[in-house]
Amino acid sequence: MIPNWLMQRAKLTPDASALVTGQGHWSYRELYEQSLEIAQQLHHLGVQSNSRVALLSQSNDQTVLFIHACWLLSVEVVCLNNRLTEQELRWQVRDSEAKLVLVDDQIQTPPELDDIKSLFYSAVRESDPKEFIILEQWNEDQTLSIMYTSGTTGVPKGVRQTAGNHTSSALASALNLGLTDKDSWLCMMPLFHISGLSIVIRSVIYGMEMRLYEKFDAKEAASQIIAGHVTAMSVVALTLDQIVRVMEATDSKAHPLFRTMLVGGGPVPLDYLDRATACGLPILQTYGMTETCSQTTTLGKADAVRKVGSAGKPLFFNQIAIKDTVQPGEVGEVLIKGPHVTPGYIGSQSTRNALTEDGWLATGDAGYLDEEGYLFIVDRRADLIISGGENIYPAEIENVLLAHPAIREAGVCGKEDTEWGQVPVAFLVGSVNEDELLDFCSERLARYKLPKEFRFVEQLPRNASNKLMRFELKKWL
Amino acid sequence: MIPNWLMQRAKLTPDASALVTGQGHWSYRELYEQSLEIAQQLHHLGVQSNSRVALLSQSNDQTVLFIHACWLLSVEVVCLNNRLTEQELRWQVRDSEAKLVLVDDQIQTPPELDDIKSLFYSAVRESDPKEFIILEQWNEDQTLSIMYTSGTTGVPKGVRQTAGNHTSSALASALNLGLTDKDSWLCMMPLFHISGLSIVIRSVIYGMEMRLYEKFDAKEAASQIIAGHVTAMSVVALTLDQIVRVMEATDSKAHPLFRTMLVGGGPVPLDYLDRATACGLPILQTYGMTETCSQTTTLGKADAVRKVGSAGKPLFFNQIAIKDTVQPGEVGEVLIKGPHVTPGYIGSQSTRNALTEDGWLATGDAGYLDEEGYLFIVDRRADLIISGGENIYPAEIENVLLAHPAIREAGVCGKEDTEWGQVPVAFLVGSVNEDELLDFCSERLARYKLPKEFRFVEQLPRNASNKLMRFELKKWL
Repeated sequence: MIPNWLMQRAKLTPDASALVTGQGHWSYRELYEQSLEIAQQLHHLGVQSNSRVALLSQSNDQTVLFIHACWLLSVEVVCLNNRLTEQELRWQVRDSEAKLVLVDDQIQTPPELDDIKSLFYSAVRESDPKEFIILEQWNEDQTLSIMYTSGTTGVPKGVRQTAGNHTSSALASALNLGLTDKDSWLCMMPLFHISGLSIVIRSVIYGMEMRLYEKFDAKEAASQIIAGHVTAMSVVALTLDQIVRVMEATDSKAHPLFRTMLVGGGPVPLDYLDRATACGLPILQTYGMTETCSQTTTLGKADAVRKVGSAGKPLFFNQIAIKDTVQPGEVGEVLIKGPHVTPGYIGSQSTRNALTEDGWLATGDAGYLDEEGYLFIVDRRADLIISGGENIYPAEIENVLLAHPAIREAGVCGKEDTEWGQVPVAFLVGSVNEDELLDFCSERLARYKLPKEFRFVEQLPRNASNKLMRFELKKWL
Repeated sequence: MIPNWLMQRAKLTPDASALVTGQGHWSYRELYEQSLEIAQQLHHLGVQSNSRVALLSQSNDQTVLFIHACWLLSVEVVCLNNRLTEQELRWQVRDSEAKLVLVDDQIQTPPELDDIKSLFYSAVRESDPKEFIILEQWNEDQTLSIMYTSGTTGVPKGVRQTAGNHTSSALASALNLGLTDKDSWLCMMPLFHISGLSIVIRSVIYGMEMRLYEKFDAKEAASQIIAGHVTAMSVVALTLDQIVRVMEATDSKAHPLFRTMLVGGGPVPLDYLDRATACGLPILQTYGMTETCSQTTTLGKADAVRKVGSAGKPLFFNQIAIKDTVQPGEVGEVLIKGPHVTPGYIGSQSTRNALTEDGWLATGDAGYLDEEGYLFIVDRRADLIISGGENIYPAEIENVLLAHPAIREAGVCGKEDTEWGQVPVAFLVGSVNEDELLDFCSERLARYKLPKEFRFVEQLPRNASNKLMRFELKKWL
């Protein structure tokens, strides 16, 4: 059994600082009281415990309150990526069978959701409250959040993240990173991604302050880090570089209290590492995914140089194995086991097994363990393209391109890009006007997924079984 | 699932300092390798996984190695109090059905255990090793340790402490006390008590150093605290006072790195609190018991004065309730719920339910929660006598006294004592030579349980149901 996080936290340390944003600051008592009021309003509007609602949000204090309100009600939250197209959003909401979409008033152009019931935050806040009995403890397998991620097939899968998953992830992270009563975690990551949501969860479990910003802001991040207002931050290599640039330009150093720069979404170039270290930023590279509720391995600062390129070692409760290998150094599919691993999917993919019979998650990523047990990722799953911290699955873009009547074959791969890290490029067999094709894609794919180039070719590289070899496409770039 | 602690810890941080004693120091790799060798020797001697062995130990490095060896083998360890008489020990070993007693070579006068098989540590170390496959993960309900504690009936009960109990206790403690990579916990508590064993467990789960001493030594403790070699220590009020006296005499202060003086076994007098604070010792009063695998509530240093006399608030995963009460301030039996609470007993008491149907542990202690949710203990369970940190149950002594043919009635209560905190005093109806009675008791009761006074009276105070009213005895003192 796991205590209803915010209820328990507000009992234990009601006066501790919970949340700081541009709009104000909240103690745990305030966070609890305001979230409880929203929960009672949602309840009055017919939202029942153990039902499912979707959240189309910006990363602001209201969203934190609405997420906690749902959890006080033991309601499952489907975290929608606000960069998706109407078509993508409708698909996910339908697939999730969410009864209601809660829409942040800050969303500039709310999508047309047809027959799906939606309510702005402000509409909920106008409702009367209706009291309910809070479930004081959750079962470990209580689903609290759902995030969609695509894979080899390109079909988005709604990943269940349970109370047990999130709690064990937060605890393993604390054992790894340490914990003090001065801790404050800077969040400039979207709350609809696990990188952002996991900070909300660590905050309430640890009784730790979260400083939340709607968007990434390198100058502001550097300023918070230099002033010692925060002790930890989650970034990707791209945003790390931008913060380091600001600090280099002003010749400034991180405050001694700042002790964790958690870098996810792929390896950190050695040059970034050197420059960040020179700025006093302790870099902890981490490897994780939606299915593992954030970190599953982390490379400590002590090993950052000695084991450069490594994703580190598992956290305390986790196991890592390489499929069908015996010796250290042999490359194979990375397998993950532990209480932080999702039990499975919802909706159309609910019959798909997330885990092997032995309880291992097959990541699709290729990697190896060295003699000392450090994990090295050799190739990301499904030719994953990581663009500005967002995961893009080639198959999803290919599926859209192939839906166009004039396209016979389509293959997508990532191209290196100085601004975004990587961008998608499409190789096509067929004949069509590029602008028309881009319009076609724009209706169906979030902007960040749109191919930055279309290249028309005679044929695509395929193996003997006629399977597309995306790694060959990369050589054509 | 919970990883086999030492195996996982040795994988993750093999070179971190694990254990420091007067005999040497061990990294986690060394602790693992040496414990594994002992495990293989035990295995060669016929000890099987999931069997049960008893440990009659001193608190030294060898005992830490033997405990870890048993856990690597997934063997249940019955922790015997080395101050018990032969008769008490034989009873506990028989009750536990342990197949083997491992006896520390440092035990001065090893008990005669009749037909129970026993081996000295040194005899085990002379065996050949035999390899076995380590269970990499434990189920949460895997019993790892068993400790005997008496209660209202005076019959010792073997309390099961599972992997899940110990792990959740250690994690909740870390959330409460914080955790840094400089942490080192000073242990001068017996390892056969939960106060000592829980430090072994925190150490291996956190990857934190333990500095272990065979006996309490106020001067050495003060010296370690002043030098900053340790950051935490577990004490009782009596030993706290002795450390403070040493620090006062030398006009010295605790090192700034020292941040946790965890005081269990009853409330800390306000005078001690003031004097400890003047020495820079941050006092955290805690309430826990064998059945809760150490701490269940803790009073933080910030509240030490404002809430003096309180045992604090529950740790994050725990719930506290007062039986049959509604309002704050109402006194009743203290109930505890959480993943750290024992699932039950072994041996003759295995059919006794440890928990209510709703999963609450009824402690037998009387207390109340104030308006802010702080727990205050009003009266300890079963008129518990706490003498030099050891729990003594009056009923257990009374049972022995009543077994003497010349004693018709017996009632035991605690008397205040400047040296030990409390000592047991016996009120008797009957006629017998005091020396003869003392000899009779000495064979059957550990020395610390022996009554310091026998008082012969006409009759004992009993209520309408003829139940002995021990609180009335106290008035006779």
